[in-house]
Amino acid sequence: MKTDGPTTDATAGFAATPRTTLKRMAKRGSYDRSVIHAILDEALVCHVAFARDSQPFVVPMIYARHGDSLYLHGSTANRTLRALVGGAQACVTVTLIDGLVMARSAFHHSVNYRSVVLYGVASQVTDETERTLAMRALIEHAAQGRWDEVRPPTREEMLRTLVVRLPVTEASAKLRSGPPLDDEEDYAWPVWAGVIPLQLTASAAQNDPRLPNHVALPDYLAGYARPPRTR
Amino acid sequence: MKTDGPTTDATAGFAATPRTTLKRMAKRGSYDRSVIHAILDEALVCHVAFARDSQPFVVPMIYARHGDSLYLHGSTANRTLRALVGGAQACVTVTLIDGLVMARSAFHHSVNYRSVVLYGVASQVTDETERTLAMRALIEHAAQGRWDEVRPPTREEMLRTLVVRLPVTEASAKLRSGPPLDDEEDYAWPVWAGVIPLQLTASAAQNDPRLPNHVALPDYLAGYARPPRTR
Repeated sequence: MKTDGPTTDATAGFAATPRTTLKRMAKRGSYDRSVIHAILDEALVCHVAFARDSQPFVVPMIYARHGDSLYLHGSTANRTLRALVGGAQACVTVTLIDGLVMARSAFHHSVNYRSVVLYGVASQVTDETERTLAMRALIEHAAQGRWDEVRPPTREEMLRTLVVRLPVTEASAKLRSGPPLDDEEDYAWPVWAGVIPLQLTASAAQNDPRLPNHVALPDYLAGYARPPRTR
Repeated sequence: MKTDGPTTDATAGFAATPRTTLKRMAKRGSYDRSVIHAILDEALVCHVAFARDSQPFVVPMIYARHGDSLYLHGSTANRTLRALVGGAQACVTVTLIDGLVMARSAFHHSVNYRSVVLYGVASQVTDETERTLAMRALIEHAAQGRWDEVRPPTREEMLRTLVVRLPVTEASAKLRSGPPLDDEEDYAWPVWAGVIPLQLTASAAQNDPRLPNHVALPDYLAGYARPPRTR
């Protein structure tokens, strides 16, 4: 999970900008495109922010990455999406919690995590082909294999849906992994130390109360896990 | 998990303000203090935002609630915390993902979740007793029982630590639970529908490589789970 940090290879990574240059613990940072994409593909929910004057607003949203685009969607009345397509600067943050780092000292307790912070100005997607592609990506991001089975959106549903694209170009990742790092003199402190691994985990699927008896759980939802299994 | 929505009982809930008044899907909202506290106590990480001009910045952070205060901490050089104690308007969002809602139609797919959005202006905590209380709350929020076992912070470590308090007074919660809600005519669509429950789950604790053989995992970390078990 540790990476080699900033890269200058334009095919592999993003150039740091004033917004994405990591201010603290830069050794935990990465501008590597594959690292950033892997985090975006594993997480389910992002936190989307815009500001009005100097008041920030942050809401959780479902999203999907497709190539170098991040898609969001919601009602045409959604305040956040309307602000974004109105030209507001966006900040989208995605965080995976990988574990609690239990050190000997209170001070060196930490969290193992992988996060991405993405900046940019979003656009409204108006091309119908791209809108369908985005809707498919959003469903498939949650459950790979789902799109082909469900009742596709109607024209009227699509008219009520705002689809938004944010370029995944100005982004950075930050990661911590591994055991606690205590001060040398604390290693003799008589307390358990180590990592409690954490992961978003699925438990047994719950049938809809109105599901007919003969409809079985599909393979792609049995043993559901993040990151998605390769099909 | 469903709540009765906005309340006017000041002892039980918060008054809606222009910032916290829910704009969309208000039926999913709550201003109930106990609902908001329960979400804050169960989640591990919050997303903290401030804005400079109209540029929002959002970072994940550990936090702890104690009474009607939410505590954050970090290095005295931490950019976000410095902005907050410098008087920036803060928005803190906490999100629990409870499940994927698999409907018959693409359009009605959803996520079961519980989230809190909190607004306010933070203050730097300077009183040493409250700073220690906050540090204890931050450790205990992650692992109840941990504080009494670990090497306490030294005076020098505390000098390097910025502790920040945000009042938990201007807050709202938003929640979705239960099965998908499809359009009546879609219930005959031949696809599995229901909920894939999701939860942040711990797997087996990993001993620090330098842990002596005789130091055992304490009870409060064995079977670690969120929300914390009552001790």
